[in-house]
Amino acid sequence: MLRYAGPLERLIQELQKLPSIGPKSAQRLAFHLLRGGEEEARALADAILRVKSDIRACARCFNFSDEELCGICGDARREQGTICVVEDPSDLMALERAGEYHGVYHVLQGRLSPLDGITEDDIRIAELVKRVETERPKEVILATSPTVEGDATASYIATLLEPYEVEVTVLAIGLPVGGDLDYADQVTIARALQGRTKWRR
Amino acid sequence: MLRYAGPLERLIQELQKLPSIGPKSAQRLAFHLLRGGEEEARALADAILRVKSDIRACARCFNFSDEELCGICGDARREQGTICVVEDPSDLMALERAGEYHGVYHVLQGRLSPLDGITEDDIRIAELVKRVETERPKEVILATSPTVEGDATASYIATLLEPYEVEVTVLAIGLPVGGDLDYADQVTIARALQGRTKWRR
Repeated sequence: MLRYAGPLERLIQELQKLPSIGPKSAQRLAFHLLRGGEEEARALADAILRVKSDIRACARCFNFSDEELCGICGDARREQGTICVVEDPSDLMALERAGEYHGVYHVLQGRLSPLDGITEDDIRIAELVKRVETERPKEVILATSPTVEGDATASYIATLLEPYEVEVTVLAIGLPVGGDLDYADQVTIARALQGRTKWRR
Repeated sequence: MLRYAGPLERLIQELQKLPSIGPKSAQRLAFHLLRGGEEEARALADAILRVKSDIRACARCFNFSDEELCGICGDARREQGTICVVEDPSDLMALERAGEYHGVYHVLQGRLSPLDGITEDDIRIAELVKRVETERPKEVILATSPTVEGDATASYIATLLEPYEVEVTVLAIGLPVGGDLDYADQVTIARALQGRTKWRR
């Protein structure tokens, strides 16, 4: 099969390595970069290199950071006695957007998934236990995803934290706000029923 | 709103400038690059810069090329007397994949689209007329897309080529091979009827 000129073909190949970018998308992105300004392409290439050289894991919570401690760990106004455990930095951001949480975080950088070969050694569980041991927080909120693997990860961590004097909590499971009961799945409705609370206004 | 650490936020912003990459996709791509190998990120950044520095338009047909003439224009075995006019290099590649065409091309680099402010000065129409004048081809195939804008572009070019002694043809419009008559749109069926040919096997 005929191919595009060397450098263009190579860019298309490299773009195809990215998640959910197929041959068609890769071609469209490459054409866009080729036709766009020199500045835009340079800025993107530079941003890619910068992120690799400048971003690391926060030494305390393993959130992405460009300094020793991330913005949240470095913020003295955050409640240091509450640690919210999330799988990924994107989950942390989702919680921050809600604006309801004022404690600190611990980013596991994944979840237990034996089928994918991800065990407790691949994610930051040991570091969490160590933090609980040394920081002695009042509460650890297990905010892993409400999936089989997320639940298994939470359950495993809860067991490890049993020896410590810390309250371990999980996020409420129930109907999403604005969701139609009619469209909620059976398991969510069952969990919403189990977790029902007294009417109050 | 809280943002990711500077370099990461910047990469997400740059990725979002790409076509059909939204905030969620940009975040996923950035995370992928951040977690992936140093090599992969460097290869992508390098490919982006290379494509800008090394790829130009073929001096004759305006296909993407890394040399003065593109691979097709530089190939003496191609029939020089037939020029196939396409909108984009991706259309050229689609024709090449069909393996049926052995002439040369002329890449317009777009199509007339007054609503988007794209006029005859923005695409390589004048260069095509000049080629017809100097190269004196036997045939010009107008292979613009079968859309309103593609048809208008073909029609405009056909008018410009009238003074020259050259056969101007267009691709056949009809049912796609493997397509179900039932699923074909009315306009395509009407055009297939108008263009019907004698049965032969």
